Amino acid sequence: MKRVRKLIKHIISRVNVNLLPMGLDVEQALNSTLLGNKMATDYAYYALSIDHPIYFRFRESNLGGSYFLGKCDVDRSIIIRSDIRGDELKAAGTEVTFGKVTTELYRDEIIQVVNSFLYKTLVHNHSRNPESPELFRIQNTVSMHYANIHGTTLEGAYLGAFATADLSVMHNCIVGDYSYIQAGDLSKICIDSGRIWIKVENKYEFDYRYPQAILEKYISWDQEGELTGLFADFLKGRRSDFLPVYDSLAETFPVWVPDNAFVSRYAVIKGDCVIGENCLVAQRAYIENSELGKGSNAQENSFIVDSRFAGFVVVAHGGKLVFSNIGEKVFIGFNSFLHGTEENQVNVGSGSIVMPHTIIHASEPIDIPEKTIVWGYITKQSDLINQSMSLADFSKEKDFNIGRMSFSGDAAAFIRDFQNRVEHILVDNGARYDGKQERRGHAQKTQYVSYNLFQPYLGGDKQGMFPTIVVDDS
Amino acid sequence: MKRVRKLIKHIISRVNVNLLPMGLDVEQALNSTLLGNKMATDYAYYALSIDHPIYFRFRESNLGGSYFLGKCDVDRSIIIRSDIRGDELKAAGTEVTFGKVTTELYRDEIIQVVNSFLYKTLVHNHSRNPESPELFRIQNTVSMHYANIHGTTLEGAYLGAFATADLSVMHNCIVGDYSYIQAGDLSKICIDSGRIWIKVENKYEFDYRYPQAILEKYISWDQEGELTGLFADFLKGRRSDFLPVYDSLAETFPVWVPDNAFVSRYAVIKGDCVIGENCLVAQRAYIENSELGKGSNAQENSFIVDSRFAGFVVVAHGGKLVFSNIGEKVFIGFNSFLHGTEENQVNVGSGSIVMPHTIIHASEPIDIPEKTIVWGYITKQSDLINQSMSLADFSKEKDFNIGRMSFSGDAAAFIRDFQNRVEHILVDNGARYDGKQERRGHAQKTQYVSYNLFQPYLGGDKQGMFPTIVVDDS
Repeated sequence: MKRVRKLIKHIISRVNVNLLPMGLDVEQALNSTLLGNKMATDYAYYALSIDHPIYFRFRESNLGGSYFLGKCDVDRSIIIRSDIRGDELKAAGTEVTFGKVTTELYRDEIIQVVNSFLYKTLVHNHSRNPESPELFRIQNTVSMHYANIHGTTLEGAYLGAFATADLSVMHNCIVGDYSYIQAGDLSKICIDSGRIWIKVENKYEFDYRYPQAILEKYISWDQEGELTGLFADFLKGRRSDFLPVYDSLAETFPVWVPDNAFVSRYAVIKGDCVIGENCLVAQRAYIENSELGKGSNAQENSFIVDSRFAGFVVVAHGGKLVFSNIGEKVFIGFNSFLHGTEENQVNVGSGSIVMPHTIIHASEPIDIPEKTIVWGYITKQSDLINQSMSLADFSKEKDFNIGRMSFSGDAAAFIRDFQNRVEHILVDNGARYDGKQERRGHAQKTQYVSYNLFQPYLGGDKQGMFPTIVVDDS
Repeated sequence: MKRVRKLIKHIISRVNVNLLPMGLDVEQALNSTLLGNKMATDYAYYALSIDHPIYFRFRESNLGGSYFLGKCDVDRSIIIRSDIRGDELKAAGTEVTFGKVTTELYRDEIIQVVNSFLYKTLVHNHSRNPESPELFRIQNTVSMHYANIHGTTLEGAYLGAFATADLSVMHNCIVGDYSYIQAGDLSKICIDSGRIWIKVENKYEFDYRYPQAILEKYISWDQEGELTGLFADFLKGRRSDFLPVYDSLAETFPVWVPDNAFVSRYAVIKGDCVIGENCLVAQRAYIENSELGKGSNAQENSFIVDSRFAGFVVVAHGGKLVFSNIGEKVFIGFNSFLHGTEENQVNVGSGSIVMPHTIIHASEPIDIPEKTIVWGYITKQSDLINQSMSLADFSKEKDFNIGRMSFSGDAAAFIRDFQNRVEHILVDNGARYDGKQERRGHAQKTQYVSYNLFQPYLGGDKQGMFPTIVVDDS
C-alpha cells in the first residue's frame, strides 16, 4: 500500500494548496473516509458502448468500485464507488453558446479528474464552462459521500456529503453538506450546509436555507469523522443488497423489461416491480415493490421503494422515495427524500416540481396538488403553506420571500427553465421514443453495452493501485 | 460484424501469402472453425500480477474467451479461448546463449501476435529464437484446436489440431494434427500428422510416426470441417463444466488448497480431490476425483480424472489422464492421453518419462515400470515391448530403431536433457518451495493476481471487435 499512501498524501497536498487559504484542511476528511475502505481489492469497471465515443486513460490512481463511461482521463486520483458518466460529452464540431458567444468544439470533450478524491460521487456532464468546452475538469478536489457533480468544472473544491454542484464553475469553493448549488461562475466562496441556491445572472435567484438543527438529524459526522444521520441509516440498510449484483455477470433481470426500456445490470430490483416502456433504470438505482410508468427514469443512486409512478417521472441522481405516489411528468430533484409510510403516504400531483434537496418526511399523509413547486423541509400537510406554490402563482411573482426561501427576478422564466430541463432529460433518456431512430435516448442506446472489469494490484508496494490503462476505439 | 469479417479476410490473405506457395489455403480451415463461435459476446481477460512485468496492447482484434499474462501485443488477430502466458518472458538485461553466442536482452521480452488466428491454443514462452530475443513473435499463423505453441517463433505457419510446436523457430511450415515438433530452426517444411520429432543438431534425433489409421480414430475432420474423433469426444463431454467457472468471480474453491499451492479460479475441481503442498493447478485444468501429491503440476488444458499422483508429477499442457496412477517425478508430455478404466488402470512407475503425444488407451491393465521412457500408441501390456525402454537401457544406445521409432545420436544426453527439463519445470512452478523466498515458483508467486475482464462491442459494425487497449505498470 506504499504507493497508495503516497497518493493520498499527494492529493491532500494539492487540494490544500487551494483550500487551506480558505480555512479548510482536507486531511482529516480524507483520512477518516478512506479508513476501512477496501481500496486494495475492489474492482472497477468501464462500459463499452457502441453509441458513445470511448476513451479511457487511468494513471497512478485507485478506482475501487467505480464506473466509467465515455471519455475519461483520471490521473493521480482516488475515485471510490463513484460513477463517472460521459454519455453526454459533446462531440468535436458541436456548437456551444455561452452568453453571446458561440464557439465550436475542436475535439471531443473529455472528463478529466486530476489530483482529486471522489467518494461515492456521481459525475455527470453537460459542462457549462465556456473557457474550455473540450475539457470537463475536476482538479484538486475532494468530494464526499453521495455528492453530485453535474456539469460543474471544479478547481480546488470541497463538496460535503450529499452536496450537489450543478451546471456551475467553481474555483476555490467549499460547499457544505446537502447544499445544492447551481449559480454560474463561483470563486473563493464558502457555502453553508443545506443551502439550495439557484442563480442565473440577470435573470433570477432562488435561495433556501435549511434550519441547521433539522439538517443534523439527516446528516452529521461523529467523532471519528464517520457519516451518520437518517440519510446514512437509510442507505446502510440497503447497501448490502448491491453486493450480489456486483459479484455476478448475470444477463437476466428479476423483472420483465420491455425492449425499449433499459435496466442496468448494476441496478437492484427487488420484490414486485413493474417497469414501463421507455423507462431507464441506471446502475446503482434501487427499485423495490414499485411501479415505474412509461418513460420514467430512476437515475444513479436513486431509491424507489413501495412507490408508484405515473408516466414520465424523472428521479434525479440520489432521489429517494418510500411510499410515494407520483403523478405524470413530475420532477424529483437531486437528493430529494420523499419518505412516507403505509399509513402516511406522500402523493405528488402531475406536472409538479420537487426541487432538488427537498425533504418530505411524512408524519401524516401529504398531498401535493398537481402543477405545484415544492421545496424545503416538510413533515405535515400544513408545512406546504410556506414551502410550495402552484406553478401558476409562482410564475406571477417577481421578488418575494416565503418562509425560509427568497426569490428575486423572473419567476416565470425560472419555472419555464425547469420544465424545459425536465423535458430535455426525458428526451435524452429516451422517454419519448416512438420507434424512430432519431427519437432514441439513453434507454434505447445503452442496449449494446459491455462491462469491463479491472482490478488493482493485490500485493506489494503497488497494492491498491491500478495499472496504467488506455482504451480507445481507434 | 462488418469489421470482424474484414479482419478474417485480412488474416486469411496474410497467412496465405506464406502458405499458398506451400500448397495450403487456410480459408476453409479458418472459416469452418469460426462458424458458430460466440465471437461477438465472449469476454476475454488479462491477469495483473505483482510478480510479472505487465504490458498489454490489443489492437483491431477479437479475443473471445482468451487469457493473457505478462507482456503481450496483439494486432489484427483472432485469438479464441486461448491462453497466452507470458510468465516466463525474459527481463531486460538477461543473458541468453544460443550455440556459442551469448547476448543480453536490451529490453523486456514481449509476446507479439500479428495477423494470426489462434484457436484454443496455448502459447507459452521460453523462446529459442536467437535473432530477436526481445520479441517472441507469432505472425501470419493459423493454429487449430488445442495446439500448443511453446517457445516457438512462428512466421507463416499452420498448426493442426493438438499439434505442438516446442522450442523451435518455424518459417513457412505446415505441422499436421497431433504432431510434436521440437527441432530447431525449420523452414518450408510440411510435417505429417502424428509425427513426434525431436532433433538437436549434432546431438540427437528422435522420430516416431503414428500409423495414420490409428490416428484417425482420435483426430479427424468431418465434411463441414468440424473436429471429430475420440479426443474431441473426450473434451466435448467435459466442456460445459467450464462454464460456471467463467461466469463467476468466486474467490473460493471446492477443495482445500494449502497456502503454498495454487489453484486457478479458472480451473475446474470436481468430486473428491486432494491438492498437495506446492501444487500448481493452472487455469483450464480439469481435476475430478483425483489426488495430486506434493509438488505436482496440472498445466493448462490438462484433464486428470479418477487418478492418483505421487509427488512431483508434471502434466504438461493438454495431458489427459483417466484411471491412471502415477509414481513420483513422472513427466506426462504435452497432449498425452492415458486412458484407463476402473478395471484396466494405467500405472506408471516413478521417474518415468511419458513422451509428448503418447496415447495409452488401456484395453487391459497397463503397468509401466519405474524409470522407463514410453512413447507411441499403447493399448495392452505387450505394446510396451516396442514402445518403451528403461532409461538405463535407452541411455546406452546410440543409433537404433525400435518399432516405428528411430533414434540417432547421444541417447544418454537425450534422457539427461529430458530429466533436466522436468526438474527445471518443477523448480519454476514452485514444487521445490521450502519457505525460502528464492525457491518460490509460479505456485507461490501467482497468489497475488487479479483478473480483468474485457468485452467486445456488442453491436454495430464493430460488433465482435475489441477496442484498442493498452495496459502497463508504469
